[in-house]
Amino acid sequence: MIRFNCDYSEGAHPQVLEKLVQTNLEQAPGYGQDVFCRQAADLIKSRCQAPQAEVYFLCGGTQTNLTVIAAMLRPYQCVISADTGHINVHETGAIEATGHRILSVPSHNGKITAQQIHQVCQAHWQDDNPEFAPQPRLVYLSLPTEFGTMYSKKELQEIRQACDKNKLFLFIDGARLGYGLAAQGNDITLPDLAAYCDAFYIGGTKLGALLGEAVVMSNEKIQKDFRYFIKQKGAMLAKGRVLGIQFLALLENDLYFQLGAHANKQALKIRKAFEKAGFPAMYDSPTNQQFFALPNALVKQLEETYAFAHIQPLEHNQTLIRICTSWATREEDVTQLIEDIKRLTE
Amino acid sequence: MIRFNCDYSEGAHPQVLEKLVQTNLEQAPGYGQDVFCRQAADLIKSRCQAPQAEVYFLCGGTQTNLTVIAAMLRPYQCVISADTGHINVHETGAIEATGHRILSVPSHNGKITAQQIHQVCQAHWQDDNPEFAPQPRLVYLSLPTEFGTMYSKKELQEIRQACDKNKLFLFIDGARLGYGLAAQGNDITLPDLAAYCDAFYIGGTKLGALLGEAVVMSNEKIQKDFRYFIKQKGAMLAKGRVLGIQFLALLENDLYFQLGAHANKQALKIRKAFEKAGFPAMYDSPTNQQFFALPNALVKQLEETYAFAHIQPLEHNQTLIRICTSWATREEDVTQLIEDIKRLTE
Amino acid sequence: MIRFNCDYSEGAHPQVLEKLVQTNLEQAPGYGQDVFCRQAADLIKSRCQAPQAEVYFLCGGTQTNLTVIAAMLRPYQCVISADTGHINVHETGAIEATGHRILSVPSHNGKITAQQIHQVCQAHWQDDNPEFAPQPRLVYLSLPTEFGTMYSKKELQEIRQACDKNKLFLFIDGARLGYGLAAQGNDITLPDLAAYCDAFYIGGTKLGALLGEAVVMSNEKIQKDFRYFIKQKGAMLAKGRVLGIQFLALLENDLYFQLGAHANKQALKIRKAFEKAGFPAMYDSPTNQQFFALPNALVKQLEETYAFAHIQPLEHNQTLIRICTSWATREEDVTQLIEDIKRLTE
Amino acid sequence: MIRFNCDYSEGAHPQVLEKLVQTNLEQAPGYGQDVFCRQAADLIKSRCQAPQAEVYFLCGGTQTNLTVIAAMLRPYQCVISADTGHINVHETGAIEATGHRILSVPSHNGKITAQQIHQVCQAHWQDDNPEFAPQPRLVYLSLPTEFGTMYSKKELQEIRQACDKNKLFLFIDGARLGYGLAAQGNDITLPDLAAYCDAFYIGGTKLGALLGEAVVMSNEKIQKDFRYFIKQKGAMLAKGRVLGIQFLALLENDLYFQLGAHANKQALKIRKAFEKAGFPAMYDSPTNQQFFALPNALVKQLEETYAFAHIQPLEHNQTLIRICTSWATREEDVTQLIEDIKRLTE
Repeated sequence: MIRFNCDYSEGAHPQVLEKLVQTNLEQAPGYGQDVFCRQAADLIKSRCQAPQAEVYFLCGGTQTNLTVIAAMLRPYQCVISADTGHINVHETGAIEATGHRILSVPSHNGKITAQQIHQVCQAHWQDDNPEFAPQPRLVYLSLPTEFGTMYSKKELQEIRQACDKNKLFLFIDGARLGYGLAAQGNDITLPDLAAYCDAFYIGGTKLGALLGEAVVMSNEKIQKDFRYFIKQKGAMLAKGRVLGIQFLALLENDLYFQLGAHANKQALKIRKAFEKAGFPAMYDSPTNQQFFALPNALVKQLEETYAFAHIQPLEHNQTLIRICTSWATREEDVTQLIEDIKRLTE
Repeated sequence: MIRFNCDYSEGAHPQVLEKLVQTNLEQAPGYGQDVFCRQAADLIKSRCQAPQAEVYFLCGGTQTNLTVIAAMLRPYQCVISADTGHINVHETGAIEATGHRILSVPSHNGKITAQQIHQVCQAHWQDDNPEFAPQPRLVYLSLPTEFGTMYSKKELQEIRQACDKNKLFLFIDGARLGYGLAAQGNDITLPDLAAYCDAFYIGGTKLGALLGEAVVMSNEKIQKDFRYFIKQKGAMLAKGRVLGIQFLALLENDLYFQLGAHANKQALKIRKAFEKAGFPAMYDSPTNQQFFALPNALVKQLEETYAFAHIQPLEHNQTLIRICTSWATREEDVTQLIEDIKRLTE
Repeated sequence: MIRFNCDYSEGAHPQVLEKLVQTNLEQAPGYGQDVFCRQAADLIKSRCQAPQAEVYFLCGGTQTNLTVIAAMLRPYQCVISADTGHINVHETGAIEATGHRILSVPSHNGKITAQQIHQVCQAHWQDDNPEFAPQPRLVYLSLPTEFGTMYSKKELQEIRQACDKNKLFLFIDGARLGYGLAAQGNDITLPDLAAYCDAFYIGGTKLGALLGEAVVMSNEKIQKDFRYFIKQKGAMLAKGRVLGIQFLALLENDLYFQLGAHANKQALKIRKAFEKAGFPAMYDSPTNQQFFALPNALVKQLEETYAFAHIQPLEHNQTLIRICTSWATREEDVTQLIEDIKRLTE
Repeated sequence: MIRFNCDYSEGAHPQVLEKLVQTNLEQAPGYGQDVFCRQAADLIKSRCQAPQAEVYFLCGGTQTNLTVIAAMLRPYQCVISADTGHINVHETGAIEATGHRILSVPSHNGKITAQQIHQVCQAHWQDDNPEFAPQPRLVYLSLPTEFGTMYSKKELQEIRQACDKNKLFLFIDGARLGYGLAAQGNDITLPDLAAYCDAFYIGGTKLGALLGEAVVMSNEKIQKDFRYFIKQKGAMLAKGRVLGIQFLALLENDLYFQLGAHANKQALKIRKAFEKAGFPAMYDSPTNQQFFALPNALVKQLEETYAFAHIQPLEHNQTLIRICTSWATREEDVTQLIEDIKRLTE
């Protein structure tokens, strides 16, 4: 079975593992206050051109989302998210479990617009009794989105403006950020993210690390006391070094972005094959996730050799499936898949 | 200014107040363990033909909703509600503040169907990883709904069946229950509610009491320890008698239902006047709330004399407004409004 | 049975009830935005000489405590309280249910000191990893305390200084405030409380109202958005007028303080009788609650005629009991009790 | 600097790291549903002689404590803990943040007794209004305790009986379990723990893993839906394999217990040296943590070469310090420390 079902089927990229081995017996203080975390944080701040930022290392996406959002909101405030946003559909109510409502807005291509954000806020503040509904205070975006799509720099700037106008924080879930930043046509950079967001994170788990998400917090007000949140939510590793070391390995030589580019390239080759065969991609994704509506018969045939995700049954005996590549995807496996697509659809 | 804007503009119905005065100096234990609460509870259980039920008196709707729902759910479970449900739109995230997600489903006429409930549960349990989304465990309905509409007994039975099939509790918000049960065409009774619901409440605040909601809890499993919830949520009055006495006054001689019938009758007269003038009611409500889409010019003219709620601006220079009657609505005020509608729309 | 077991055995003081009757049919907006609440708030602000304060009316003590404390703390912050404080012993974990730890310190006579507060904060901030424990941010006091005792103005000033030094808010639970302010030897005034506290409340439930606590919030930062908290916690009455009207009745002619003085006077007469009989008061309370260690045999004899609270069994066949007077305590009942104490202990 | 300050100064034991390297490129499903986790779980169940148990792998101690405790309690229930228990002193209110009060009882040698547990429950249930305080439902112990001390099997049996009598769950925090089970004089085994506890965990982070705690849940009622809790609290790793692989390495050849025995042996040599020098251990610990009250002058001298934890300043110019050994502690470092103790105290 050749797996295209997710980007976390293997362990870590070998260079990441190697650095864990090399540093293993060096003694270091616990709880993220070690030299590896400090070096990794400095490297990230430098790449982001954000000397005032603080960088925190957490374990996974849901944990990072719930911890950062809890730090940004008062109990009566809510977070605006695309209806398809990860926090809204795939985190077992983790945000609500911290007491906060998610105000979901309809998405297009996995994205929401500055105008939608502005309208939601206007509706809140123009109500005779705004205190009868949670107060919007934060926008949550994913980059790339859950469908692999990207915001443009212009869209991001407009969203930032909508946030400023409506006194909202902006937080970007970058669980797959490396795929996005390395995507063809992308015009957003790390310094852009540090400038436009109050916080965002660089996802390691889904791009070469065993685990780990690096939160870049530009907004100094939220930095204050953020370590209390990390500890309270059970997100502070005694051996915090494990996270710092991995991000050092990923970022020292831009390995992180090379791996992203590799995965994107493979994904686009597969997309091209499906499109040639008459199955256009369902979302305009330049990244490692590609979605197709395929006849169930074809799905069955492909599944004899390949693993991929069933997203949803569709009408007319079709299924929405997702193909996902990663740093570990082998060229020969992609070539074989492309040939099989061709063969099975001729 | 003649007020049709809500059903809580005055104090209590005079008979309610009188009973508070009469009993004022009798000494009684605190925290709802007095003879008045006991008598009122017994009366309600008898009317509901539900000897196994327990009755609890709380202060208001949001408080009752959040307390009962917290008692019915484990932390990872969610409550299914119409998108227009009160808990979903008008309670400042009170349910989420107890840690629970609301799973909203599209409503028609303020109502949801057994089929929708079943589909939502099926989708949850058929997912490969159901634990990635909150688990449906409870259905919340309002009776009448936020638009004044009523479920039929048949619809309620079907919803109960969907709940049984999917291991869901059923909880009905009866903040305006008296208007509903007294409505023309209604075929639901108190014993029906006690039989079909795990819990429901009889709203006093919006129907003649100063404050107070009587929760009828049929399900014995939830009864256990429910007083801990009441106390923890700050919902246990030291002078619990205040609630018991009022429900005694409202229910002893069916005053509660007479008041509901009076308000409904006035509301339907107004509806008829608007419909004659070419403005059909927006929802098929047989109760004290009536909604109309009126030209803004007419709204302005009416507002010189009458207060009513602006729900939402509409296209074509119209506004969705709500007319609300109550036990305190005077016939002469209704007559005057009807005449003004006629005069202003000829 | 003559009841000395609590101060909420009856309904409301007749003048309070009368005002509810008089105003009953006047129409008013809901949710505390009526003219009665406004007048009561203005009256309270004037008595407190605190024009910048806001006044909010809530229903009961636990509800008020949990709502105000939630508004004052971030999720990782805790509240300092006497170990005997009401929030620490008698509220079913209501504070913890909003996510916050109570940092309890040993009390003497029901009170804590400025020095204790300072030490607790020093210990927190001198720890190598302060973020491993909740951050102290608020001091909760009761006035009078749970044992009826009073802080002096000097003690209160010192506590305020300890709060300033350690960046703490100060919040006083005044569920029985009227008894305290009317007590012999008390040198604290309403303007003092408004000046020294970020928030405090004037308890109505236990001093003549059916229900109701008036929160005086001096600190403007916490005022902002406080109505969201009230609504979210289920503490906002649709007929908010019910609370405003009662406080108007209680405060217009200083009825509140006269009732407090009456209850204190009766309590001190009873205390004197017990002390003459060889049973000194266990706490130095000048207010309506008095505690005595009595032989179980005497307890039994007294209970043939009188109801009072058993606080705790003691060694040597004794029981700690509480006698509680109120605005409704009748002089003849007190006289009879005093005679019975004398008779039974000769 | 030679570090005796904690047991998480290095990375993982080399065999653990080696297994991560060996398995790195094998593809596996995510979220703990991989073959490594299954094998590790089966191995643990077999060692525990508990076929009905379920085993879950989480990241760290605070996370495990808050997740398991949340799964065991209803919102109004509380957990009984030693006042010195980790959840009570060093987790930033993580338990309270899930809504639950910790009912702390005084500890002796870091331990609490069956009798204390029983008394606390009796006091609750004998109260006239038990619902005014959180309901005890769970006992939390640490094994070894925060002071390195051990419960005997007899003490554990008595505590289990007290739990049964009072309808309490029993949960043991085994963050350092391997040191405890390998301790001289210990008579508790893994099967004992599985039999007496509803849940306990085998700590990896502090005993040779990069991170990881293996929860053994014997009680089938709590197993149900526990994965929802893991996901909601952000504790479910996408690459769950990382945890399973490490526990396989630790447990396959009893490496875990050999490492524990090594650390204990070193710790006891150091203890003996201090005791010979006139500084008896403050707690009767047979495990890797040893506590001493040392003159500040001696502390200063030792700190020129060694790192250790300052627990607390004491009277008479002394400091309570902790020496902590681990799997990584080198014999030559211990020998050197012992010689320095001798030299400096002669």
